[in-house]
Amino acid sequence: MSSLNDFFEKVITVKWGPEKKSVDIIDQTLLPNTIKRIQIRTQEEIWEAIKKLRVRGAPAIGVSAAYGMAVIANDIPDEDYEGFYTKFKASKEYLATSRPTAVNLFWALNRMEDTVKANREKPVSEIRRLLYAEAEKIREEDVQISRNIGETGFRLMEELKEDGKELGILTHCNAGTLCSAKYGTATAPMYMALEHGWKGTDMHVYCDETRPLLQGARLTSFELYNAGITTSVQCDNMAALLMKTGKIKIIFVGCDRVAANGDAANKIGTSALAVLAHHYGVPMYICAPSSTIDMATPTGDDIPIEMRDPEEIKSMWYKEPMAPAGVDASFNPAFDVADHRLITGIITEKGLCSAPYEEAFRKFGIK
Amino acid sequence: MSSLNDFFEKVITVKWGPEKKSVDIIDQTLLPNTIKRIQIRTQEEIWEAIKKLRVRGAPAIGVSAAYGMAVIANDIPDEDYEGFYTKFKASKEYLATSRPTAVNLFWALNRMEDTVKANREKPVSEIRRLLYAEAEKIREEDVQISRNIGETGFRLMEELKEDGKELGILTHCNAGTLCSAKYGTATAPMYMALEHGWKGTDMHVYCDETRPLLQGARLTSFELYNAGITTSVQCDNMAALLMKTGKIKIIFVGCDRVAANGDAANKIGTSALAVLAHHYGVPMYICAPSSTIDMATPTGDDIPIEMRDPEEIKSMWYKEPMAPAGVDASFNPAFDVADHRLITGIITEKGLCSAPYEEAFRKFGIK
Repeated sequence: MSSLNDFFEKVITVKWGPEKKSVDIIDQTLLPNTIKRIQIRTQEEIWEAIKKLRVRGAPAIGVSAAYGMAVIANDIPDEDYEGFYTKFKASKEYLATSRPTAVNLFWALNRMEDTVKANREKPVSEIRRLLYAEAEKIREEDVQISRNIGETGFRLMEELKEDGKELGILTHCNAGTLCSAKYGTATAPMYMALEHGWKGTDMHVYCDETRPLLQGARLTSFELYNAGITTSVQCDNMAALLMKTGKIKIIFVGCDRVAANGDAANKIGTSALAVLAHHYGVPMYICAPSSTIDMATPTGDDIPIEMRDPEEIKSMWYKEPMAPAGVDASFNPAFDVADHRLITGIITEKGLCSAPYEEAFRKFGIK
Repeated sequence: MSSLNDFFEKVITVKWGPEKKSVDIIDQTLLPNTIKRIQIRTQEEIWEAIKKLRVRGAPAIGVSAAYGMAVIANDIPDEDYEGFYTKFKASKEYLATSRPTAVNLFWALNRMEDTVKANREKPVSEIRRLLYAEAEKIREEDVQISRNIGETGFRLMEELKEDGKELGILTHCNAGTLCSAKYGTATAPMYMALEHGWKGTDMHVYCDETRPLLQGARLTSFELYNAGITTSVQCDNMAALLMKTGKIKIIFVGCDRVAANGDAANKIGTSALAVLAHHYGVPMYICAPSSTIDMATPTGDDIPIEMRDPEEIKSMWYKEPMAPAGVDASFNPAFDVADHRLITGIITEKGLCSAPYEEAFRKFGIK
């Protein structure tokens, strides 16, 4: 446990800097080759860190923005509400431009602004204190969501664990501590296992490298390895053979958005994993905070798929381009949708959902 | 057609150099960024070209070695049989060490040696001429095998082609002109389509980039694009979404070895494609010269799978390593096995084989 605490101290995505006068983040653009933490304090520094993906992942961005606004507010000298709020609002709107598609960013910034407005009758010094508390609350809520998901996932792992054998787990992309406040979503069952006394060698996590952006190789294998968990990385096209040879007993993946019928959008490659898991009889679970379940979206077909820059496929990361200049690579989908008929269950912080999913979601009060 | 001839003139893997005094190859280690042909003449140059993968792919290596032995024999000054044969044999055994696992290399070298021994009563000048003829025959046989596979595959493409629409084709790795004497195996149907008058825009070939060695991006997309065929490259984990959205009407892949029951070993990722193709109802064909069908191997489970260097996954090609130094990547299988129950057919130069495969192979006289 102490080594797990040391691990989180070292790689935690966001924490307070000294005397809470700055936000301390791990610079993810340098991973996995350099572990460097940086303290950001000014609105420009916080904006740049989000913009340049030094911090990434919806919950982690939310917490960073909230922590950032608390620090910024602490540096606003005005003691009158109007002067304070005007500057607070300007900083908030500036931070919102750092990643215009990050819904969680706006959600966290709005919670911080609501805290200011709800306490306008109080002294500004008290509002500053309440902003720290609100930022902390945003963080703690995310930790609790992860813990709940992790506990449910860990129980599934316990059922499958054979004495004296490592439990083979497959994951895809990064739904880990590096995108969240602490335990991640897909990785939460693994970290919970350590908290419950499993040794790192009791499990073996196979990380899909996750082309084209390689989050599995760069981030997930990095964090699990540093947490002392037996970790491998393999190319995405090797997962089928891992399943066929019986090395994988359970699959945990994160998600971006779940439709009412249980179709789950997640990093490109997830739909293939679902087909393969179903074919080879490997249980596959989507780890989904209930905030990602969108009951207004009937099925996965209603989720538009973002296409990204072809150069991510053709030249990014490489010493020189790996496909001829003229060759098309415009089919570069950011994610795809795992068919709800192929997955085993969806783990939310409220509990494990099984088919029929719409009914299960409603039973847990998800609307 | 003339542009197709120009294409083959430019990218053909192996041809004679000026006055047949050298072997002219395209240096595949420089692709796709530099198209450079080199003339190799001495046994050291030929050995180095095979060793360093400047020429690769079983048939291409066989033809290069045969062409090489003809050139080397032409440079042996001895006019007495014993002196000539001693030097020929030494060169042959030297070339055999260039890639000790390349069965086709030994097969071609043995055919050349057999030509020498079978004609020992003839003048050495005549043996030299017969060696050129034998090398040419080895090349022509491979071209004919590809043509036959291509004609069968093209008929399947014709059946699926809709007027005014490009025919979507998926392929994996490189089973193209760059690994063969001319038309390749998986690409043969596409080149045959051009010879039959299809325009390059009548089809759209989606090339899996094929991690970790990226043969699909570097080689297949290069050759098809240069042949004027509409070509895209995508990450391996994107093939499922291509199939789901109906873009792929047919899949052609090559193979290393086919078991008697039709299980087909091919580049890692092929087994996943077979599962996905079956799930999404896309016909998938293995393009297999009958020499790759091994009736002594009952099933795919009897084919041992070579594991390769972890650094191919973790650091090769990249500006800096993409996974932490300590992370395991020892699961790096060179190939996997497509389940015969999931594929639609196996195209040999003798015709199209369908299940039950063992019966179909025997019907075509494959033993």
